[in-house]
Amino acid sequence: MKYGIAIFPSKEVQDIANSYRKRYDPNYALIPPHVTIKERFDANESQINDIVKELRNIAKETKPFPLIIKKVSSFHPVTNTVYLKVQPVEELVELSDKLYNDKFPNERQFAFVPHITIGQDLSTDEHSDVYGSLKMHQFDIEDTIDRFQLLYQLDNGSWTVYETFKFGEG
Amino acid sequence: MKYGIAIFPSKEVQDIANSYRKRYDPNYALIPPHVTIKERFDANESQINDIVKELRNIAKETKPFPLIIKKVSSFHPVTNTVYLKVQPVEELVELSDKLYNDKFPNERQFAFVPHITIGQDLSTDEHSDVYGSLKMHQFDIEDTIDRFQLLYQLDNGSWTVYETFKFGEG
Repeated sequence: MKYGIAIFPSKEVQDIANSYRKRYDPNYALIPPHVTIKERFDANESQINDIVKELRNIAKETKPFPLIIKKVSSFHPVTNTVYLKVQPVEELVELSDKLYNDKFPNERQFAFVPHITIGQDLSTDEHSDVYGSLKMHQFDIEDTIDRFQLLYQLDNGSWTVYETFKFGEG
Repeated sequence: MKYGIAIFPSKEVQDIANSYRKRYDPNYALIPPHVTIKERFDANESQINDIVKELRNIAKETKPFPLIIKKVSSFHPVTNTVYLKVQPVEELVELSDKLYNDKFPNERQFAFVPHITIGQDLSTDEHSDVYGSLKMHQFDIEDTIDRFQLLYQLDNGSWTVYETFKFGEG
């Protein structure tokens, strides 16, 4: 099965993200707004049991940290993806780094740019319009993150949560 | 916030349910296929912390149990809802009963009929067609349930998992 690991911000932040996603993100219906901390990977049942144990260890040694969003940014010209830029606080970067240690399948393929996607697969014109109108907008979001989730993907592309890992618990 | 408590069956069962839901269930995009074990309720932050503690106690004393599906059924004429009928094994019924004890808001409003919705809000003609063609179909699904999930609802009607509760863990 395909798995991924993500953080869901508070309902308030998810509602803000969805107000854009419903118009600009074709994946709107497949998963709630999230910060991916480990990209999709394959694992069988025995592997996932080991991975769950390692995720518990990692969660146990992680402390709650702030999720801070000030502005929108874009991956253009690599992809026409517009996102809420999540500040790369040390705890978040360390957490994601740990999910690429040698107990996990898949190495990191891109530098970690923490973000909540609000638009993707946009045409270049759409991208210019959306990013042009949002890039001047100041956000003042500060949330506390105290857990992450392991998800698996269904055949229709949507994601179901397999397990929640709360920080400080093992 | 609005919360609900549900069981997600295995990916295989979810994929089967989605093959019908995509055509017949307008809630297809709002939540993966699931068995609701406590209907939507309101709780504030302090209440939900107490509820989470109680859910841990309940999970700790629950043992994994089978989820068995043999056939499709319908709530017609009450509502034009078609569902995979989940056999009401004792552990499942007991688990749902505990979620209506006096530590939780909301009393049970209907008898507990465990099910995975695959079609709803159908016109009477659609309902006759869909249920007519599915009611003779024999399913032979047996799955093991070892966890349940507390979810909350976003403004767009979709659901995000707040926490997973694994049986036998507290």
